[in-house]
Amino acid sequence: MSPTRNLIIIGSGPAGLTAGIYAARSNLAPLIIAGKNPGGQLMGTSFVENWPGEKSILGPTLMTNMHEHAKQLGCEFLSQEITKVDFTKKPFTLWTHKNQELSAHAIIIATGAMPNKTGCPGEQEYWGKGVTTCAVCDGAFYKDKKVAIIGGGDTAMEDASFMTKFTNEITIVQILDKLTATYAMQERVINDSRINIFYNSTLTSIQGDGQHVTGMTIMHKNTQHVSNLPVDGIFIAIGLKPATTIFQDQLQLTDYGYVHVKNHTRTSVEGIFAAGDVSDARYRQAITSAGIGCMAALDAERYLKDSGII
Amino acid sequence: MSPTRNLIIIGSGPAGLTAGIYAARSNLAPLIIAGKNPGGQLMGTSFVENWPGEKSILGPTLMTNMHEHAKQLGCEFLSQEITKVDFTKKPFTLWTHKNQELSAHAIIIATGAMPNKTGCPGEQEYWGKGVTTCAVCDGAFYKDKKVAIIGGGDTAMEDASFMTKFTNEITIVQILDKLTATYAMQERVINDSRINIFYNSTLTSIQGDGQHVTGMTIMHKNTQHVSNLPVDGIFIAIGLKPATTIFQDQLQLTDYGYVHVKNHTRTSVEGIFAAGDVSDARYRQAITSAGIGCMAALDAERYLKDSGII
Repeated sequence: MSPTRNLIIIGSGPAGLTAGIYAARSNLAPLIIAGKNPGGQLMGTSFVENWPGEKSILGPTLMTNMHEHAKQLGCEFLSQEITKVDFTKKPFTLWTHKNQELSAHAIIIATGAMPNKTGCPGEQEYWGKGVTTCAVCDGAFYKDKKVAIIGGGDTAMEDASFMTKFTNEITIVQILDKLTATYAMQERVINDSRINIFYNSTLTSIQGDGQHVTGMTIMHKNTQHVSNLPVDGIFIAIGLKPATTIFQDQLQLTDYGYVHVKNHTRTSVEGIFAAGDVSDARYRQAITSAGIGCMAALDAERYLKDSGII
Repeated sequence: MSPTRNLIIIGSGPAGLTAGIYAARSNLAPLIIAGKNPGGQLMGTSFVENWPGEKSILGPTLMTNMHEHAKQLGCEFLSQEITKVDFTKKPFTLWTHKNQELSAHAIIIATGAMPNKTGCPGEQEYWGKGVTTCAVCDGAFYKDKKVAIIGGGDTAMEDASFMTKFTNEITIVQILDKLTATYAMQERVINDSRINIFYNSTLTSIQGDGQHVTGMTIMHKNTQHVSNLPVDGIFIAIGLKPATTIFQDQLQLTDYGYVHVKNHTRTSVEGIFAAGDVSDARYRQAITSAGIGCMAALDAERYLKDSGII
C-alpha cells in the first residue's frame, strides 16, 4: 500500500480537474483518479457555447485544456477506476478495479453522472447502432432521416432543436402530459413545425435490421394505443444517474441517489467532499461543476489545516 | 421610463457576465449594468493562473473575452451605475446615477466587493503614489525597493510571495498574533528570509515627500511601542467590502454587509438573486463567481417561468 496522501480526487470532469488545479496550487499534491470516463460528459459533446469567455469550443478541447493545466501544476493522474471505499476509518481507504489500495486524509468525490436508459427491448442491442444519448455528437449522421427524442426536459428540447439543423422529421416521445423543460426551450420546440410531440407516451420497443435501428413502438399510457413508427435514430434524453453506487453504504445520499451535501461541498462524513453532477441534480453545467470543484478544494484544504494534517 | 425587462443584471465581473451569457441563451434578453468598475476586480490584475483550462491568461483579457461572449449572445450593456433601488414593489425599479429609471421582473445582483482601506493618515494622500491594493499590478515598480504588506490573510500572503520576485526587503504588518491565511500560503511566507513579519501591529500613518511614499509608522498593540520604517511601497491587503450600500434597506444582509443568500442565489426578496463576491465572503474566486452567476441566471429563469412572466 502506498503512503497516505493529503487529498485524492475521484473523477476528472470539470469538477475534478478544477479541484485538482486549486489543490495543486495549494501544495496538496493531489492524486486524480481519472475513472472510467476521463474528462467526463463533455468528452462526448461537440461544440460548447456556454463556457464563459469561449464563444464556441469543442467539449473535448476544453477538457484537454483543463487536464493539461492540472498536469502542469503537478496533479498526478491514475488511469484506474475506484470500485470500493472505506470511509468509516481515518485515513480513508480506496481500492481500484485492479485491486490497488490507496489511502488519503481527505477525498473529493467528483464521479459525475451517467445518462439513464429506458430498458426497453432492443435498446441494448442497438446501442451505438442508432440508439444514443448524444444528439450533438451523432446528429450529423441523420441528415434527412427520421429521428426520435425520448424525454421532455431540457436535454430533450436541446436535442430536438439541434436536430432541426439536419432533418425535418423529428418526433418527441414524452411520458407526461406536458414538457418539463425551461420555458424558452419548450417554446422553441412547440413552435417548430418540424417537430412532432407525442404526450403521455412511452417507448416500448426498438426494432432494427440487425445492423441499425429501423423503427420503434410507442404506447399511449391512457388509451393503451400502440403505434409502430419507422425511425432511423433514437436519442434517449431521460435524465441522469449519479455515479454513487460505491458510496451507498458509506455516505448519506438523496432520494434520487445523489451525494447529499450541505454548506456547498460537505458530505455526511467529515473529510469527504463532493462536487459536480454527483451532488447536483439542478444546475449540471460545466461552469457550475468547475465552480463547486474549486470550492471543494478550498474546503478540503481548510479541513486538512484545521485537522493539523498540513 | 423604458418598458419593464425580464431581467436586469447589476455588475459585469465574472458573476454578472456569466449570468448574462446564460440568460441570453435562455432568450431573457438581459440588460447588464456595467457599473463603476466594468469587468470587476480582475481588470486590476495581471496574470491569472487558476482559471480552469488557461495555464496563464491576463485578467483583463479573460474579462474582455467574457464581455465579447455575452455581447455576441445578445446581452445589452448600460455604462452607468445604479444608485437607488426599490425592491418593495413588483416589478422592481432601479435608478442610475444619471437618474435614468429602469424596471425589471427579476434582478441579479453581482456588484462584487472592493478592497478595504486602513483609514490611517497619509493613506488617501499617497493613494496611487506608493499606496495600492494590487501587488500583482504594481509590484514591478518596486524592484530592489522596500515594500510593506498590510494584512495576514490569503491576499497578503499572495502579495508577499509575489513581491519576492522583485525585492528582498518585504515587511508584513499583521494586526493579530498570527497569520490567518491558508496553511500553504503561510508556510511559504514564514520560511522566506526575504519577508519579515510584525505581529500584533497596526499601521498608524504613512509618510511621503509629497510625490511618493517614503515611510510608515507602525505601533505594537500590546507594548504601544512605535516604529518608523523607511518604505517605498505599501500594499493594503485587509479584506474586501461588498458593494451593498444601496441594498441596505431593501435586502437582508449578513453581519459583514454581504447579501444574505439561501439555496445558492436566493435573497430575502423573491425575484432578486445574488451571485459572486457580493454574497460570498468565503471563496471569492473568478471560477466560483462564474459558477454562481450561472446558477443565478437559471434560478431567475425558473422564477420568471413559475411566475408566469415568460
